[in-house]
Amino acid sequence: MKPPVPQVRDVTIERLDGETRTSERDHVVVEAPLQLRARGTPVATIMRTPGHDLELVRGLLHAEGIGLRASHNRNIDAPLRQLDEDAVDIDVDASAFAGRGLLSSAACGVCGRVAIADLELRAREVTADTTIDHGVLATLPDQLRAAQSVFAATGGLHAAGLFTARGELVAAREDVGRHNAVDKLVGYALEARVRPELLLLSGRLGYELVQKAIMLGVPIVAAVSAPSSLAIELAERFNVGLVGFVRGNRANLYAHGWRIR
Amino acid sequence: MKPPVPQVRDVTIERLDGETRTSERDHVVVEAPLQLRARGTPVATIMRTPGHDLELVRGLLHAEGIGLRASHNRNIDAPLRQLDEDAVDIDVDASAFAGRGLLSSAACGVCGRVAIADLELRAREVTADTTIDHGVLATLPDQLRAAQSVFAATGGLHAAGLFTARGELVAAREDVGRHNAVDKLVGYALEARVRPELLLLSGRLGYELVQKAIMLGVPIVAAVSAPSSLAIELAERFNVGLVGFVRGNRANLYAHGWRIR
Repeated sequence: MKPPVPQVRDVTIERLDGETRTSERDHVVVEAPLQLRARGTPVATIMRTPGHDLELVRGLLHAEGIGLRASHNRNIDAPLRQLDEDAVDIDVDASAFAGRGLLSSAACGVCGRVAIADLELRAREVTADTTIDHGVLATLPDQLRAAQSVFAATGGLHAAGLFTARGELVAAREDVGRHNAVDKLVGYALEARVRPELLLLSGRLGYELVQKAIMLGVPIVAAVSAPSSLAIELAERFNVGLVGFVRGNRANLYAHGWRIR
Repeated sequence: MKPPVPQVRDVTIERLDGETRTSERDHVVVEAPLQLRARGTPVATIMRTPGHDLELVRGLLHAEGIGLRASHNRNIDAPLRQLDEDAVDIDVDASAFAGRGLLSSAACGVCGRVAIADLELRAREVTADTTIDHGVLATLPDQLRAAQSVFAATGGLHAAGLFTARGELVAAREDVGRHNAVDKLVGYALEARVRPELLLLSGRLGYELVQKAIMLGVPIVAAVSAPSSLAIELAERFNVGLVGFVRGNRANLYAHGWRIR
């Protein structure tokens, strides 16, 4: 038996606290692709935190109604098998997945390196040498909150904002879906032909959000919460400054910390 | 011109605060399907908060590389057109979407009623008459946090827990993806043939999570944050008690409040 796949990864970050800047070890949650195969044929890739993979696939198939006994989908009969740490096989014909893109949240392969290689085909390294002052960065979460009209009324929305490196809000968008809020901003930037400098998110930083930022050419991505392991890897590879836990005068730099002065 | 689609909906809730229980008006964020058509042919349904729909579609297509000019997908040429409040058309052939289930997060139609009708084909109303004491409910968020090992280390995870109506933790799962954490629990419950009584989520309550709970037959769904409009509609229809903002001795009841004693 291989050792279990870790759910946490040690990384080196720079921690900013007011005027001080220290290099420290920190932990981030692992985000990694799980490939689902149907009798050996790859049918979907699921980005997830490793652990309980068979349960995850059972639950997903239940939601999709694949490999189920009748009677309102209460039971799944088709056996599942963990092939290795990155793949699960289900004993149904691959045709059961025809037209079911629903399961897949990423068109990537079976490991983080493949996810990065996939993005290399679709996006370029960010070449802009944009940097931002830490004091300016610290003001952005309040600006984004001030722009959140609906959130103030309901507490039920994710927000995303585009800013200039001088700290000016360019546009803010909200949605029940975090990815939607970012997609709205990307659409705005494409329409308005805005040159994006910084993307700020109200929540956590998964790889998919960083991927969308890279495809738009955003040099700095910041969030008030934590990034995943794969988000860091993508930012590192594509020359994106990745900042988490932007709270008051503090911030954690996970990739290309030189972009925060 | 029709009036803009509201992003917030007024609902009547019961607010619990210690021993007091009052009926109040509250606001929730609207979650509603947007249909994407390619020259008239429906190709995807996106669950979103209304507003900036064209930007949302532009951003999504950019991420998917559909209807793009070359040069690393920096520009989209295919014109978009808002057909009505629930539909956007893109001027590309529908074949561009072949095999792209990625865009769709719901196999539902063009309005909330269709989303509910779709689920009626796949799930039954929850018939169990399960109720929970408010004092017991109030203890669950701390129990879930105590079970979150990885979260404690990284702050980067969503958590979901299954509980009995007596307040005993049955299982807890974590993941970078909120849906994954719930899918893992659903898979666990199916494998272990557990009769689920209450599902608690660390974050917000979108319709998709409530749908997964309904398909498992969970009678009470609770969260420490807010539900969406469509989550409430689903819970109402399928006899599920829906509780938000479970914090200390307070909680908001959005559907079937009789399940909280």
